[in-house]
Amino acid sequence: MPQLTLYTAKVCPFAQRAEIALAEVGADFKRYEIDLSNKPEWYAPQVNPASKVPALAYGGPDVPPDEPSPESIKIPESLVLLQLIPELFPESSTLIPKDPIVLAKARLFIESFSNTFIPAYIALLFRGEEGAEDKLRAALDTVIQARKLEGKKYAVSDEFTIADAAVVPFIARAELLLAEDLTKAEAPRTSKFIAEVKADAKYKPFWDYFDLLKDRESFKATWWPDAITSAARSRLAAQ
Amino acid sequence: MPQLTLYTAKVCPFAQRAEIALAEVGADFKRYEIDLSNKPEWYAPQVNPASKVPALAYGGPDVPPDEPSPESIKIPESLVLLQLIPELFPESSTLIPKDPIVLAKARLFIESFSNTFIPAYIALLFRGEEGAEDKLRAALDTVIQARKLEGKKYAVSDEFTIADAAVVPFIARAELLLAEDLTKAEAPRTSKFIAEVKADAKYKPFWDYFDLLKDRESFKATWWPDAITSAARSRLAAQ
Ligand SMILES: N[C@@H](CCC(=O)N[C@@H](CS)C(=O)NCC(=O)O)C(=O)O
Ligand SMILES: N[C@@H](CCC(=O)N[C@@H](CS)C(=O)NCC(=O)O)C(=O)O
Repeated sequence: MPQLTLYTAKVCPFAQRAEIALAEVGADFKRYEIDLSNKPEWYAPQVNPASKVPALAYGGPDVPPDEPSPESIKIPESLVLLQLIPELFPESSTLIPKDPIVLAKARLFIESFSNTFIPAYIALLFRGEEGAEDKLRAALDTVIQARKLEGKKYAVSDEFTIADAAVVPFIARAELLLAEDLTKAEAPRTSKFIAEVKADAKYKPFWDYFDLLKDRESFKATWWPDAITSAARSRLAAQ
Repeated sequence: MPQLTLYTAKVCPFAQRAEIALAEVGADFKRYEIDLSNKPEWYAPQVNPASKVPALAYGGPDVPPDEPSPESIKIPESLVLLQLIPELFPESSTLIPKDPIVLAKARLFIESFSNTFIPAYIALLFRGEEGAEDKLRAALDTVIQARKLEGKKYAVSDEFTIADAAVVPFIARAELLLAEDLTKAEAPRTSKFIAEVKADAKYKPFWDYFDLLKDRESFKATWWPDAITSAARSRLAAQ
């Protein structure tokens, strides 16, 4: 396999998608942490013009990650990487369902999560927007209904797929930061909210699903709650 | 192959993506035209709750399209279908590049087009927004730069891929409707604009690329300019 270097950040849910994929396939790669509050000067011009993580450098000579080679191919975008990584290691994981219809369902599940949970998450955690709790409740419902329709262990399959890898980084950050009131909303607004949706029987299928996801080795190996809470504390203190 | 029915509309660029894919793979399918200005009552509840085209009904018994079977699987979203269709007919087209890195580049090309050309297209055609021409010029530039970097015949490959199929329906509609001033902007604002960007040598690589795309059989077989202009006329008259 050609050289692989992942530019990533412990705090970033998008980046964790790529890290989970690398862990699932068992890839040999270099992990380079980008400090998002103080990005290296070379990062945008030499790795990702959009200046975001994750980005993968593929191929080229074996160089130190902070001296990227112009010969490697640089690939950004978490959902592109989440598919590319298992495609590079085709028999090494269950991430890409073999049945094209199940794969289409995985992509639809991700699309739906991206249009419901992620905006609600941003509205509540980063803006403390009024009514954001209702949006998040609706997003939990959407996940519950989609899984009920399929009736499988994970989102769309009895195996762990890209659908599951795409969503767990967001659910885990939401649970952690809401419970500690590390959000733009005034305490104890979000800790009360999360306690409430956890106690409500209606949302039990959602939390059962999350329990499964967070038990996955590839998740545990790429989950740094201390980095996440401390970054949230600094961000809130700086505002 | 199981039953395939595509719910589509001649006017819709998203739907044309799926039609191009079906034409490329040479699939045997039923085409059902949805009148977007008067959608059948059964469409949302029985085919696509989001009430949009395209949607594919896959499998189940051989039924008339206007009596969809609950046994078929209903799949919406043009980009999901654009990948699913060639995945269902794996050796029948060049749509999905065999090299995972080229496939990742195709997905990045689509992502970039979706974030530049499509919003500029909507801003100019449907809203006549001030400054929309500059956004569209920037979008043409983005396409030119991305292709220059790859140096291939089509977007990311010497073969016709999902990247090309995803963009041609939008470019073709833009060219047609801007030239006829069938937009929210006051005539002759958009016909002047399109004449100008067509005459400008800077944008020649873009129009050369478009010439290639519109010459493709799968495009020509799924392109109904009269339906598109007459729908635009009705929409503008109704406002
Ligand atoms: N659409 C991108 C989004 C990635 C993204 O927004 N990453 C954030 C961190 S979570 C980032 O790098 N932001 C730039 C910054 O913080 O300066 C993806 O899916 O990979
Ligand atoms: N995200 C969808 C968008 C599809 C879409 O917006 N289709 C339009 C027509 S171009 C539609 O069906 N709109 C519903 C309507 O007109 O009532 C896709 O990519 O398939």
